[in-house]
Amino acid sequence: MKQATSDVGDLVARRPAGQSLEAPFYVGEEFFDLDIEAVFARSWLFVAAEAELPEPGDYVTVDLGSYSIIVVRDDDEDVRAFHNVCRHRGARILNEERGSVGNIVCGYHRWTYGVDGKLLYAESQAPGFDPSCFGLRSVHARTVAGLVFICLAQEPPEDFDEVAARIAPYLAPHRLAEAKVATQIDLVENGNWKLTMENNRECYHCVGHPELQACYFPIYGYQEKDIPPALRPAYERFLLADAEARRTYDSLGLPYAEIEELDTRPTGFRIQREPLDLAGESYTPDGTAACTRLLADFPTARLGRLSMHIQPNSWFHFMADHAITFSVIPLGPDRTLVRTTWLVHADAVEGIDYDLDTMTKVWKATNDQDAVLVARAHRGISSPAYLPGPYGPTEEQVEAFVNWYVTRLKAHLERRS
Amino acid sequence: MKQATSDVGDLVARRPAGQSLEAPFYVGEEFFDLDIEAVFARSWLFVAAEAELPEPGDYVTVDLGSYSIIVVRDDDEDVRAFHNVCRHRGARILNEERGSVGNIVCGYHRWTYGVDGKLLYAESQAPGFDPSCFGLRSVHARTVAGLVFICLAQEPPEDFDEVAARIAPYLAPHRLAEAKVATQIDLVENGNWKLTMENNRECYHCVGHPELQACYFPIYGYQEKDIPPALRPAYERFLLADAEARRTYDSLGLPYAEIEELDTRPTGFRIQREPLDLAGESYTPDGTAACTRLLADFPTARLGRLSMHIQPNSWFHFMADHAITFSVIPLGPDRTLVRTTWLVHADAVEGIDYDLDTMTKVWKATNDQDAVLVARAHRGISSPAYLPGPYGPTEEQVEAFVNWYVTRLKAHLERRS
Amino acid sequence: MKQATSDVGDLVARRPAGQSLEAPFYVGEEFFDLDIEAVFARSWLFVAAEAELPEPGDYVTVDLGSYSIIVVRDDDEDVRAFHNVCRHRGARILNEERGSVGNIVCGYHRWTYGVDGKLLYAESQAPGFDPSCFGLRSVHARTVAGLVFICLAQEPPEDFDEVAARIAPYLAPHRLAEAKVATQIDLVENGNWKLTMENNRECYHCVGHPELQACYFPIYGYQEKDIPPALRPAYERFLLADAEARRTYDSLGLPYAEIEELDTRPTGFRIQREPLDLAGESYTPDGTAACTRLLADFPTARLGRLSMHIQPNSWFHFMADHAITFSVIPLGPDRTLVRTTWLVHADAVEGIDYDLDTMTKVWKATNDQDAVLVARAHRGISSPAYLPGPYGPTEEQVEAFVNWYVTRLKAHLERRS
Repeated sequence: MKQATSDVGDLVARRPAGQSLEAPFYVGEEFFDLDIEAVFARSWLFVAAEAELPEPGDYVTVDLGSYSIIVVRDDDEDVRAFHNVCRHRGARILNEERGSVGNIVCGYHRWTYGVDGKLLYAESQAPGFDPSCFGLRSVHARTVAGLVFICLAQEPPEDFDEVAARIAPYLAPHRLAEAKVATQIDLVENGNWKLTMENNRECYHCVGHPELQACYFPIYGYQEKDIPPALRPAYERFLLADAEARRTYDSLGLPYAEIEELDTRPTGFRIQREPLDLAGESYTPDGTAACTRLLADFPTARLGRLSMHIQPNSWFHFMADHAITFSVIPLGPDRTLVRTTWLVHADAVEGIDYDLDTMTKVWKATNDQDAVLVARAHRGISSPAYLPGPYGPTEEQVEAFVNWYVTRLKAHLERRS
Repeated sequence: MKQATSDVGDLVARRPAGQSLEAPFYVGEEFFDLDIEAVFARSWLFVAAEAELPEPGDYVTVDLGSYSIIVVRDDDEDVRAFHNVCRHRGARILNEERGSVGNIVCGYHRWTYGVDGKLLYAESQAPGFDPSCFGLRSVHARTVAGLVFICLAQEPPEDFDEVAARIAPYLAPHRLAEAKVATQIDLVENGNWKLTMENNRECYHCVGHPELQACYFPIYGYQEKDIPPALRPAYERFLLADAEARRTYDSLGLPYAEIEELDTRPTGFRIQREPLDLAGESYTPDGTAACTRLLADFPTARLGRLSMHIQPNSWFHFMADHAITFSVIPLGPDRTLVRTTWLVHADAVEGIDYDLDTMTKVWKATNDQDAVLVARAHRGISSPAYLPGPYGPTEEQVEAFVNWYVTRLKAHLERRS
Repeated sequence: MKQATSDVGDLVARRPAGQSLEAPFYVGEEFFDLDIEAVFARSWLFVAAEAELPEPGDYVTVDLGSYSIIVVRDDDEDVRAFHNVCRHRGARILNEERGSVGNIVCGYHRWTYGVDGKLLYAESQAPGFDPSCFGLRSVHARTVAGLVFICLAQEPPEDFDEVAARIAPYLAPHRLAEAKVATQIDLVENGNWKLTMENNRECYHCVGHPELQACYFPIYGYQEKDIPPALRPAYERFLLADAEARRTYDSLGLPYAEIEELDTRPTGFRIQREPLDLAGESYTPDGTAACTRLLADFPTARLGRLSMHIQPNSWFHFMADHAITFSVIPLGPDRTLVRTTWLVHADAVEGIDYDLDTMTKVWKATNDQDAVLVARAHRGISSPAYLPGPYGPTEEQVEAFVNWYVTRLKAHLERRS
């Protein structure tokens, strides 16, 4: 039986801490609609790297629920966003995922808008028609160190300024605004978007990720005192790498302290710089840099990873040689788009400075494995026999994400009532 | 969020003139159901040319929402229509789009009906079983000058008699009842049926139809005083063609006066005979007749076009050499079947008298282009950011169609309450 | 328009005897949900032959609505069933249709359960975590003479013990528990599951099954006194075969009396042993045994058929040489899985003792023909023009099935209120 709308408030109100959500949150149409309305239409969303829009007129379109948004670089080189809906009879204007335009022209009756959204021209109008009333409806857009965020709400969360100010020093050294896209892969996971995000907040399942696990020191989830003798050598290796990394970070002025504010603010986030295992340079099969041309003028490629997570829909890894962005777009209660973008220095040349297969191997495999796990989680939760289960100590960030999510719903339901 | 049923009445009541409808009319399941019930199940619908059923026993099946209707020529050569549902256990009886039968036999338990709908035979019935109680449920059917119309309502709109009487003199000279089908093409547009009909009621978008536009004098939408110098020669050409056409029409007794009663009656319609540009004979790349054997004994092929539009679901073009019928069947809120049928003289021979590619080129291209536009309109309107926009002076017939539609809904909601 | 939930009770209450159900029972989402809840989640369901799980650790998974159930042979060789949902975060555990396992291990975070359902191991848990609280949720399972039944209800129907006791003597001689699967074919019918079951309860439609009809004496539906002269020879043949069959059954101690209790108990069933036409041994084109190695040590293959029907979802034919089981699983209001399994003696060798094509020919053809009929029934009933029609004398068992079904719904609605 479908969950009645009247129960939404109850389900939100009674959610107990420490365990997975009840089934309707993941499988119900009414929660999907609510998630779009309460979370995705109210939060700042990472939707593209600036590198995807290098020149004025370059655009990407973002489909989110039934929304479609144009993100475009305007003639002043600022990034702007508009609803992709003609003000005449509502036609979707730009129908490609990306491209480049002089003006934004609707293909139906040739209404023509500037990249600033203003209606420049509409043929055959009655006297008294005022073009200034029919500009494209705008959407908030901003960039942070080369990352593009949009917010559909009229009043976006105010804390984003502070978040931006705190993460910018971590990101800036990687000079993403000057990078280029090496490749981008879209993957549709057959599960709810929250399962995608939860899955990303723990490495308890990482035994299923051999390629990824090889990049990490195999001591995840252990307290120092509990480390078994067999893992002692790995732990020693970690301690050395960690000390070296801190020295490097300090000498280069790279911030590395962990900030974890997942469930204490509207824009929940986490950021940390830390060493990688193997060669310690990048997410590649042997840990060496995937691109010989580094993102910036770093004296060494051995910077480990700067990892960031911003709720509701993104995570990132920034290395010396390349960066990877992940954005999550809900397509339906049980379908979620995961878009992964690999960024390299604008002057790096494929085949010479980097090999795409080597660069994408670890995260392509990891994404594919995660898609299987998320699909299984969704299918299992769909059973009437599903009961929420307990989060263990290694799933603290999952719990924090769920807390944050439930808090968002509560705030929205309160506003609405 | 889905539109609640309780809002349907409000949305209908508050529709302001002069602009496109609010989104739920186009995208809501509840309006789709209402459209079937209030419009398609109550209006006369064009569903076939008589040429599709030349002989007794010939039939076509028409699927409309969850209805399925058999349209069949009976032994008296009349066209009749029945619900395609066995009176035994409800099986769909005829499962092909068209064919020819002696009797109408259900493939499940061999219940056998005449082409007059009477139950002729049902094996293994209990004593007392009365076959006369189990004839096929009938549907109103009638023909007008070779066109077949059906109406699902118990009491069809009464004004159709008058409409038929007014259009018959325009159509009769083309002798469609004696024509044959040259070809038929089904196209599914990914948009609401009203967007298909609205799109057909204006040529404001015709810049996207190069093949079609070439057939028309390029002065559409202009008042004489506003015609720009560059279009003056075209306008002169039009004036000459128009004068010649009137002389021809008068001499042949072909009615040509425009009648436009789109929103003032249950059976909204429009009809007009007018010249075409190029060779002026037909919708072909050079305007010459596509079929050397004309539909009737016309002394010239240069008759331009007789164009007709009948609401809710059809439009037509009748030329000297061939005719084209278009019927529109809603398949879902966002899926619409457009069926286009090309008719020629019964004795015309493909490959000798006509070439199918040449005959279908213009409207095949135009239909395909329209399908793209309708899909874009539907997708754009699906966005929560869509706002109804203004109809301009060249969109008067769109406004009239929408008025007619809203009037139909109001009448139905009133009857229901 | 969709049927409102509030009408469900009315529709159930007003169902008149002697005719097919009103449309919403077959096409409504709300009846689909109710059928799962009131019928499929409360009845004993045939889901597999024991032959599908010969060894400890062998399992099949059964998907039923949004349920997924693991049916597994445990280390004591008993058949058990569990919900296929991890007690941690709800992932579906076994994702193949069948296989063999030592333990039941969730692929997400490696929670490990025994084939008895106990949680044996879960890594990284907080102190105080009690594994005994997190075993797999069990589902009732039992076997009857080699057939596996499950029941999702906490309190299964009590009458199944008696049904099992009455059918076991009929089935036992065929030694199904020792058989092996020759082949299994899944077919998805595009109709409601009740149409599939109704279709199976009458041979009024068997004129559409030439292969099957050849196996039966062509006197179905006749009273002796009404047999037409042309069928007299067939009737004489039947009388001889029937007399011979009874002698054989008596001499071998094979029960054959018809028991028909379709609508007088929660576990409605019917069983009967009777001769077949042609060679009288099996469902093959010429009626001879399809497998030279018989299922048991029968002195003759000429045993006709033992046919059984158990509501809600199965029917069976047991011959001397092979057995066929049919299980029906609703997938949606208009989609139903029919799984057909052919069983032979465990030592029979394909290509030597039996030929798969010959063995499956009759019922493969019959199933395919039935799928067409069920789809037509469903499509026709979907029309608003459908009216329930009368069941004739040869449709008594259909009426009994429908009675049983409506009684199940009434009992459930009463319990619920």
